[in-house]
Amino acid sequence: MNRSSTLFYLFLLPVAAQPVVSPDVHPDRTVTFSLKAPNAQSVRVSLEGRKDPFAMTKGDNGIWTVTTEALEPDIYGYSFNVDGVNIMDPSNPGVKPSAIAPQSSVYVPGTPPQIWEVAAVPRGTVRHHFYDSKIIAQPSDFWVYTPPGFTPKKKYPLLVLLHGFSDDASAWSAYGKMNVILDNLIAAGKARPMIVVMPFGYGVPAILKPATGPAATEQRQQNTPKFKEVVLTEVIPLVEQNYPIEKKREMRAIVGLSMGGAESLYTGLTSLDKFAYVGAFSAGMVPQPYDKSIPNLSAKDNARLKLLWIACGRDDRLITSNKAFTEWLTKKDVHYTWVESPGAHTWMVWRRYLAEFVPLLFR
Amino acid sequence: MNRSSTLFYLFLLPVAAQPVVSPDVHPDRTVTFSLKAPNAQSVRVSLEGRKDPFAMTKGDNGIWTVTTEALEPDIYGYSFNVDGVNIMDPSNPGVKPSAIAPQSSVYVPGTPPQIWEVAAVPRGTVRHHFYDSKIIAQPSDFWVYTPPGFTPKKKYPLLVLLHGFSDDASAWSAYGKMNVILDNLIAAGKARPMIVVMPFGYGVPAILKPATGPAATEQRQQNTPKFKEVVLTEVIPLVEQNYPIEKKREMRAIVGLSMGGAESLYTGLTSLDKFAYVGAFSAGMVPQPYDKSIPNLSAKDNARLKLLWIACGRDDRLITSNKAFTEWLTKKDVHYTWVESPGAHTWMVWRRYLAEFVPLLFR
Repeated sequence: MNRSSTLFYLFLLPVAAQPVVSPDVHPDRTVTFSLKAPNAQSVRVSLEGRKDPFAMTKGDNGIWTVTTEALEPDIYGYSFNVDGVNIMDPSNPGVKPSAIAPQSSVYVPGTPPQIWEVAAVPRGTVRHHFYDSKIIAQPSDFWVYTPPGFTPKKKYPLLVLLHGFSDDASAWSAYGKMNVILDNLIAAGKARPMIVVMPFGYGVPAILKPATGPAATEQRQQNTPKFKEVVLTEVIPLVEQNYPIEKKREMRAIVGLSMGGAESLYTGLTSLDKFAYVGAFSAGMVPQPYDKSIPNLSAKDNARLKLLWIACGRDDRLITSNKAFTEWLTKKDVHYTWVESPGAHTWMVWRRYLAEFVPLLFR
Repeated sequence: MNRSSTLFYLFLLPVAAQPVVSPDVHPDRTVTFSLKAPNAQSVRVSLEGRKDPFAMTKGDNGIWTVTTEALEPDIYGYSFNVDGVNIMDPSNPGVKPSAIAPQSSVYVPGTPPQIWEVAAVPRGTVRHHFYDSKIIAQPSDFWVYTPPGFTPKKKYPLLVLLHGFSDDASAWSAYGKMNVILDNLIAAGKARPMIVVMPFGYGVPAILKPATGPAATEQRQQNTPKFKEVVLTEVIPLVEQNYPIEKKREMRAIVGLSMGGAESLYTGLTSLDKFAYVGAFSAGMVPQPYDKSIPNLSAKDNARLKLLWIACGRDDRLITSNKAFTEWLTKKDVHYTWVESPGAHTWMVWRRYLAEFVPLLFR
């Protein structure tokens, strides 16, 4: 081999190798985070699901480090805070995508493997579709999961799965591991093979930019109803055109997390002719008053609603508004399943909710 | 609306809004980069295709900025260098994915739009497949592009498209905009509708970790031949199983960039029973000596090689080894097209090469 091939391709990299290894996940599930920042005065690491960041300590070499206690097996988003500015870990290729500010991610494996960990089972596929949205007046996209053994010769039930505020359309597959969770549930006989569509979840994408004033308030109010239009008149018709989907409402479900939870409750409960299963994970704010935003819901819908599943973590600030929503349902004598779980407003909670919700569908 | 909905979802974000807007692309195509780093002593921004980083200047507010000259319409990867450490732009959701160190990306639009810019034309789909690779002994993946109007009732030609060292399997779609380029070429009647497969391009993924010594050298030497096994015995059979692909060699092409260029030359030129079109963009090192790695190539293959297309930028350090390879071809009287273009070892060059190469295929 000549000199170039001994040096290999490293000399072509746009960015030199980073001076530290981070994160370093140890066999006892403690994790060491490291960042070289020789002139910083304060460096901390914020870990998804942790109220308080970990303070880091500077070594003589200008490298700040901290080792956590043993962490529960999970996938965690994190970022460093350097003198007040949040940055990704420059030593870590793992990215939690975002439409606002991406973070890094660290994977702490479990024994036995958790439901979101890749196992030796048949794997489904995720597909990225692009189209011009008339409603949001810009190019848009959605992702579709097809189960292992997918064939256009069969018909499949459809789950509409919505992300939260700040996420992009890739969130559930790239970070929520929905495809791994579905693959594992299907292999275990716990879920029916289904098609899952994950739209870009903004009716008014301008809400992603920080803004105040009446125009911004108007945009935020329009976001949920406009998104309903997107999903019902653009995304689902495109999915029906491209995939063999069951048409009847008993084969349709909609669920989302946070902002997507408000969207799934609003869209689902005002479209019971289209969905028999509605769910919400740590739902954000359903437009109020509920009597006005979801005007026709009543006890007679219990026969049509095969499942209304509402879940929130005990440490989630949204638990109050979720409880208020379920109290409104109770007053209207609409049946629902309420799941109160440990955890905060995190993907650790949402991966577990998905694994719990999907087996209840299309039975 | 209640107080929570006025605050909207911002309070749920794991990371507070960043204090600056960056990058700021101005109508005259100058770009302002900004980073808050109050205690840093030196901050620069490295822009893809620029030999020298831009020095940034610190304002009283602790924010470092620089405004570039007018940039050519393109998509640029970049990172900040803060006191010797390369970091992504924390204000920018645009990510150039990597298996080693992701970067940020900035999009400078053109008038008229460039071939990699989304236009009002029918859009294809990209699909992410997962499987267990026996050869690399780990879970692996590949991406597949299907053209607009794709139907399993037709048969399509197949292009195998390979990324470079440090990239992951998403590189060509996420950052190379191959799907947009193909969509635009097909809409203009300049390319045949085709299926494109983009494998995870490592025969020995361990080469991604920095290592020295005889074991590392052995791994690097095994990378190209092992990758040939991956693509021929794992990826292409899976694509054939899942997509309607033409079987004959006249409907098969292979091309790659950098490390992927070495892989495409090695795989293609030792498998002319399978590929009639072979290309390389800024190819990395084909295993040497060529007479040993590509032993049977001779002038009598000219009849079978419908295209051997080798391109490199004038400012690319690999131009010397690319010229050495073409000289070897000349000595063997093997015909090829040599394209020497402006530019360095960058995706700006590779997007243009793809747009030039694809129209030559399957004619």
